[in-house]
This record gives sequence, structure tokens and C-alpha cells, in this order.
Amino acid sequence: MVKICIRGSSGKMGRIIADIISKRNDCKTVAGVDINPVKYSDFEVYKYLSELSERPDAVIDFTRPQELDEMLSYCLTNGVALVAATTGYTPEQVEKIKSAGSQIPVFFTANMSLGINLLSELAKKAAAFLGDQFDVEIVERHHNQKVDAPSGTALMLADAINEARGNKYGYIYDRHSVRRKREPSEIGIHSVRGGTIVGDHEIIFAGRDEVITLSHSAHSKEVFAVGAVNAAVFLASRQAGLYSMKDLL
Amino acid sequence: MVKICIRGSSGKMGRIIADIISKRNDCKTVAGVDINPVKYSDFEVYKYLSELSERPDAVIDFTRPQELDEMLSYCLTNGVALVAATTGYTPEQVEKIKSAGSQIPVFFTANMSLGINLLSELAKKAAAFLGDQFDVEIVERHHNQKVDAPSGTALMLADAINEARGNKYGYIYDRHSVRRKREPSEIGIHSVRGGTIVGDHEIIFAGRDEVITLSHSAHSKEVFAVGAVNAAVFLASRQAGLYSMKDLL
Amino acid sequence: MVKICIRGSSGKMGRIIADIISKRNDCKTVAGVDINPVKYSDFEVYKYLSELSERPDAVIDFTRPQELDEMLSYCLTNGVALVAATTGYTPEQVEKIKSAGSQIPVFFTANMSLGINLLSELAKKAAAFLGDQFDVEIVERHHNQKVDAPSGTALMLADAINEARGNKYGYIYDRHSVRRKREPSEIGIHSVRGGTIVGDHEIIFAGRDEVITLSHSAHSKEVFAVGAVNAAVFLASRQAGLYSMKDLL
Amino acid sequence: MVKICIRGSSGKMGRIIADIISKRNDCKTVAGVDINPVKYSDFEVYKYLSELSERPDAVIDFTRPQELDEMLSYCLTNGVALVAATTGYTPEQVEKIKSAGSQIPVFFTANMSLGINLLSELAKKAAAFLGDQFDVEIVERHHNQKVDAPSGTALMLADAINEARGNKYGYIYDRHSVRRKREPSEIGIHSVRGGTIVGDHEIIFAGRDEVITLSHSAHSKEVFAVGAVNAAVFLASRQAGLYSMKDLL
Repeated sequence: MVKICIRGSSGKMGRIIADIISKRNDCKTVAGVDINPVKYSDFEVYKYLSELSERPDAVIDFTRPQELDEMLSYCLTNGVALVAATTGYTPEQVEKIKSAGSQIPVFFTANMSLGINLLSELAKKAAAFLGDQFDVEIVERHHNQKVDAPSGTALMLADAINEARGNKYGYIYDRHSVRRKREPSEIGIHSVRGGTIVGDHEIIFAGRDEVITLSHSAHSKEVFAVGAVNAAVFLASRQAGLYSMKDLL
Repeated sequence: MVKICIRGSSGKMGRIIADIISKRNDCKTVAGVDINPVKYSDFEVYKYLSELSERPDAVIDFTRPQELDEMLSYCLTNGVALVAATTGYTPEQVEKIKSAGSQIPVFFTANMSLGINLLSELAKKAAAFLGDQFDVEIVERHHNQKVDAPSGTALMLADAINEARGNKYGYIYDRHSVRRKREPSEIGIHSVRGGTIVGDHEIIFAGRDEVITLSHSAHSKEVFAVGAVNAAVFLASRQAGLYSMKDLL
Repeated sequence: MVKICIRGSSGKMGRIIADIISKRNDCKTVAGVDINPVKYSDFEVYKYLSELSERPDAVIDFTRPQELDEMLSYCLTNGVALVAATTGYTPEQVEKIKSAGSQIPVFFTANMSLGINLLSELAKKAAAFLGDQFDVEIVERHHNQKVDAPSGTALMLADAINEARGNKYGYIYDRHSVRRKREPSEIGIHSVRGGTIVGDHEIIFAGRDEVITLSHSAHSKEVFAVGAVNAAVFLASRQAGLYSMKDLL
Repeated sequence: MVKICIRGSSGKMGRIIADIISKRNDCKTVAGVDINPVKYSDFEVYKYLSELSERPDAVIDFTRPQELDEMLSYCLTNGVALVAATTGYTPEQVEKIKSAGSQIPVFFTANMSLGINLLSELAKKAAAFLGDQFDVEIVERHHNQKVDAPSGTALMLADAINEARGNKYGYIYDRHSVRRKREPSEIGIHSVRGGTIVGDHEIIFAGRDEVITLSHSAHSKEVFAVGAVNAAVFLASRQAGLYSMKDLL
């Protein structure tokens, strides 16, 4: 029985995670942590990780980038596995998370859904196959409350494609200010924002008179929550290391 | 029998227009004009409008913005109707074209296709109906040789929506450089470029748990050529004035 | 304060409706009715409408077609307004519902969302405008538990288009068994089923080298619940009659 | 220099193939064959293959299923390679084509485009990865003159997915006549017809709150013509055998 602490337990994702865990037999929520410590279910909720009375096996974190340090400090000190599911980290913060993997089990991915991770694999295969004859563009769509753009997932997809093609691409976010033809070495990344869209990602390969499109649409946050709980259970029996969805599959 | 001069007759659009005219009974091509004066069919091709031996009833222009002045000068001097179908004009140039309408019949629209002009009407209706509860975004897709972004058509659509809602919107082309939530007063406009895509436009109305999308896809340049020839025939029997697709419908 | 009875209160839609009503100030749930009478909130739940202790102003019904008669009987006898939001009725049942409008206020629509009703208006306008030159097809997508096909909404959209064009169309559901070209008088209706898709509807107008697509995507059942509650509040102050979303807008 | 005979040389595809060959240095058209023998370019056009004065290295065929026998007879008798690019064959005819591969080089695929063949590979991978948790549906769109439905390509994609999952699926073309939930063992195949759509194929994997879509859109017949010419050049240096796009890649 894997003991999980939900960090960000008062938020939407925190509540969905608690619900999912409550329906499983292989794990349980032993504590919540939230700067707004609302008791939502039958576990205790604390303001800070340092207040926890019991050491959990893993922390699932869906909070905000600025709250990274307190968490890393707690997990490293206490040898607690970490599912880092918050998005919008700076490159420096990403480095910190990754290097924590040398001391504790860390699960880090830009997107917790099974479908997106498959999409990434398919996109790499397509990019390698189609080569220079097809231009690559990415359109992502999210709700109007999202503050970061492009989404971490869009960048993850672009990076996967880039890696499959020898890192030849640069990313373009705005074409309106220049008058010039598209370069083959561009990946245009477009961030549509509106309403309550949970998360759509579309990868476009446009060639001579044919277009291939690979897309993923998430219709609820539960998709990500399920992935995070799977990751926490997975980490509980692992050595220190940096893990991603590929290890889970 | 309406006598038409095709300006830009050596280009792709010029050739398509010549083909379309050759199959109609109500009009004929009496001359082509092109800085690269290739004889393509049974009409003469000149380098400049001023060299024309015969006055046409209308000029159809699919060239480049920088060649506007020579054409306006010729049409105004000779009282020749003008179908201005080139895109990418500066606001100043648009003003010049519009004011020519006080002396000659001028047909001016950002997009010559019937479908796009219907899309514009539907978008206005939708925007008025849905009001503040839905966010508006536009995604346009064109081939990798297009130099202007966004497309004139995307701006035409945005302007139509804006007008239907009291010009409350500002246009946003890049979200990656800022970290903030979307404002209701934004219309995000996204320019995807790739392959040989002729022209796709998609208007997204994203609300609470529902999304309405209105889109148009042009699969060949013929769509625009047919519109331009229709416009030329229409202009031939009109007084001086500024006309658009709405008059043609 | 409009007094509402939720019929089907133990179902998913019933619970969502109860939640929405509980957050409004202009109406309240006075009773639930369900063959599986689970008490979910602070109102009583009965097995049959006939057991109600208090007469509600309106009944919102999200149950199954076979349970129509009990409800009509109750509403007609007691002069209670009816929001008939169940789908999948036979033509005979639809007639019964409509004729009840001569005695009580009845709200009946194939789809309770604002967006779908706008889509219907736009589709009529497009069909009238594009005429014979464009072929019309409808693709709808729903979850794998839906038993009726096509969706009531797809038929509502097809009927709206058909009406706008003088009822010239017949509907086609299967092309695989015949070897022949498409007739201009067909509307092909396609029912995609899979996963948990809440409800997507796409109307395609395909012409010569251009395609116009009008689509609606519902991402949660809340969209329909909000419409149903609005309808109930609207009915409470109306005379007997048959009302639809158009009256509400 | 590969010598090619174009069968169906007066048709749209025949002319496009002739144009493509005329721009290449590794092959040339030595004859056309068509029941309507229009001379279109600098090669001779005959009514029947048996009239050819010179033996070509390969025949590219874009005609109709009913004209198969004359062609097979000629190619087998004369040891001429065959690119069989016509669609709509009966299962018996497909057998005949395949068994010709024991005597001559035969290239046979439901779709000549590079993109579709990639799509097929990606779909197999996705189906194997996603397993039973996702429902599979295919939507194809073609012009209103197409007589067969579903497209050969849609069936090719369905078969590829089926093979990747142990042939557990049956295909469904019409859901309107039954009232029942979707079975996990179904692949729904939907044939949209309208306007001049060249060919769109969309594979939908719908799971719990997420949908993955893989799609291909062909914008001109040139896509298929290029593939057919590549195939003919490829066959010219091959032994007898049955080849497909996979061998070409």
C-alpha cells in the first residue's frame, strides 16, 4: 500500500487525485499539503510539508513553479519519491528537479497523459520518416486561465521532433512582425487560448499537396491525475533516478 | 462581352484566370500585362498597362503591393474598372484603392472566394449572439512561400467580428513572451505556414465547456480566380463606386 | 423562486442539474424522482411523480423515452410545466410531447446547449446562401454508451438545413453497400462512437475546391444542464405552449 | 531510362502522370493506352495494350476495375512490370493481381501516397500501444463522383490496425438502424462524400477523457501520380514479386 502525500490538495487537481486514490487498492492518501489547507476528505491537510507527522512514500505535486524549493528540500532530506507534475518551470528549475534524481526517485514529464506520450513517439517516427520534405508546425489550445505559453507539452513535442531530426529546428512564436517566407528549419508553435479547453495539441506535417496531422485532445484533468497516481505507485518501488512516462509504459 | 486585361498574366493566378475566362461566353481576355511578359495564350502580353493598344473594360490584378501606383494611375486616367485582388497592401495603399472608387468602379475584398465571404457573415452573427461569454481566436494556414502574416483574410475576419461587437477587441499574435491569463478583449491570430497549403481559416469561439468552430478550406487557387472573373464582369456594368463580395452576392 | 422537480435525479444529469440549481437564487429543487430513488442532496427523492407532496412549477426530465407517459399524465393533470430533455423519442412520442403544449407550457428541443442552437441557425443561413453548389454532410461523435444513432441533435441540424432548402434532401446513413455517385439531394449523416466523447457535431458544406465546416463540441454535460435549468425558469412564467431554444434566446 | 506505358492516358490521372514523367530524367513515356485514345503529348496513344509497337518496362494503370483482365493478360504474356493503381477491385480481382506477382514484378497498394503509408504505420503502432482502452473509428472524405465506399485506403488502414491487434475487429458502416451500445470489437468506418475533396482519412482513437487523431489530407491527385511513377521506376529493376509502398520506402 503506497502512502501518498498530495501537495496542492485544495486545488482542482488535488481533489481529483484524492478521488482517484480513494478508489484504488494499491495506494492511499496519507496527507494533503496546501497553502490554503482545506480538509476535503479523510486525510489531514497541512500548510507545509515540514509539518507532516508521517513520512509518505511519494509526494504528488500539482502546485506552482515558485513553490519548488520547499518541496525539493523536504523530499531530499527525507528520501521521499517525487512526482513533479507542475508545469511552467524555468530551465534552472528543471535542472534542479532532474538533479534530484541522483538522490531520490523523481518522475518528471511535461504531460502526465498516456495519450500525449504516445503522440510524442508517433511524432518522432513521422519526423524521421518524412524528413526535409515536410514542414512541422504545432498548435496547442488551452483554457483562458493558463498563464504560460506555449504549453510545456507543446515544447516537449517540439523537442522530441527536434531530437529525431538532429536538433536542426528553431522555434518560432510570431510571424506577424516579419515579411518573409518560412524557413524549413522552423517549427512554428501557436498558443490558442479560450474558454475552458482542457488541452489540445496538434502536430502538422505539411508537404507537397499532402498534410499529415497528429493530434491529442484531453477532455478532463482526470487524464493527468490518473497518470500522476500511476507514477507515484511506480516510484515507490524504485531506486533513486530520473523517470518519465517511457519507463512507466 | 466584357473585355478583361489580366495584370500578372505570367503568374500562376494569371494563367488560371485566363483559362477560366476562355471557357466563359460573357467575357474575353484582350491583353495580359506582366513585368515578365510571357505569351501564354492567344492574347498579347505587355510589360506595362500604358502599352495597351485597346482599352479593356476591366483590369484584374493579382501581382504585388509595390505595383499598385502604375495600375491606379492607368485605370483612373482611362476610366477602366479595377478588380484589386492582390493581398498584403499597407493601410495607406488600401486607402488609395478605396478612394479610387469615387472615380471608377473598384472591386476590393481581402478574399475573392464565395465561401470566405459567407464565413465572415456567419462569424459576425455568431459573435453578436455569443457575446462576452465566448473567447474568439483565429488560426490560418498557408503554404511556406507566403510572405505576409497574418493573411489579409484572417484580418478581414477579425475585423468583421470586431465590428459586430463594437470594436472592443485588440489582436494578439504572440503569447510566448508573457506570463498572464488571456484577456476577454483579445483575439489571438495564429499563422501556420507549411507545404503547399492553399489557404485554411478557422474561427474558434470557446466558451464554458463548449466550443464552436467555423472554418473554410480552399483547395485550389481557382476558387479565387472564379471570384475575380465574376467581379470583373459585374463591374463592367456598374457606375464608379467601391464594391465588395456582398454586392456580388 | 421557481420550484423545480428533477426527474432522473439519481442519474449523472440529475446530479449536475441539482448542483446548478443549488447555486442559483431564482430557483430551487423541491423534489427528485427516480426509479432508483437515491437521496443525493437536501431535497426528497420519490419513485414516481404521483408521490410528490408538493406541486412543483416545472419538471426537468433527463430519463429515458419509455418513461414518457407517466410524466405527461402527471404534468397535464396537475398543470405543471415540462422541460422534456430526454432524447431518442419515437416520432409518435414527439407528437405526444408537442400536443401537450396546448394545455401546459412545454419546452422541447433536441439539444439544450446554446451553442448547438446557434449552430443550427448558422447552418440554415449557410445552406440558403450556398444553394445547390455545395454538398451537405453531417458527422456526429458521441461516447460508446450511447444507444441511439444518429443523435437527436444531428437530425435536428439536418432538419434545419432541409427546411431552409425546401425539404429537398433525403438522409443517407450507409454508403458501403452501393456503388454509385453521390446525389446532390443527399445529406450523409455519420455516427462516430468512442470513449467518453460528450458530443461533437460537424456540418460540412463541400463545394468546388472549397469546404466550409461548422462545428460544435460539448466538453461536459453541464452545457445541457444549464440550458435545461434556464428553460425551467423561463417556462414558469409562461402560458401553455410549445417552446424551444429560440424563444429562450 | 525506364520505358513506361500509361494506361488510362486520356484521364485526369493519366495526364498528370505524363507531366510528371516528362520532367524526370530516369524514365520516359513510350505509349499511352485509353479506350478514348486522345493524343495529349509526344507519345502515341492506342486503344488496347495489344496494339503497342514497343514493349515497355512497366505499365502504370489508373483506369477502372472492369478493365483488369486485358491488362493482366498483356503484362503476363510479355513479362511487363505492372503498377496497379486503380481502386475498387473485388476480392477476386485483388487475388488475380497478387498472384500475377509470381510471374512479373507487380506493385499493388490501396494508396500511392507516401503520407498514407506512413499513416498506416503510425496507426498500427498506436493501436498496439493503446490496446483495448481506446475505441477505433475511421472517417474518410472524398469527392461526390467517387462510386466506391468506403475508400480502398480506409479499408487498408482498418486492416492494418486489425492486424496489429490480432484481427479482433469487425467493421461497421451504419449505426442508424440499431439501438445498442458500441462494442469494443467494432471499427466504425464512415464515408463522407462532397464537392471535389481529393481524399482525407482520419483515424480516431477515443479513450477515457482523451482522444488521439491521426489524419492525412491529399490536396491534389499529383500525390498519387508521383508515387505511381516512383513505383514504376522501382519495379523496372526488380525480379517477379508482389511489392508495396513498404518496399519502396
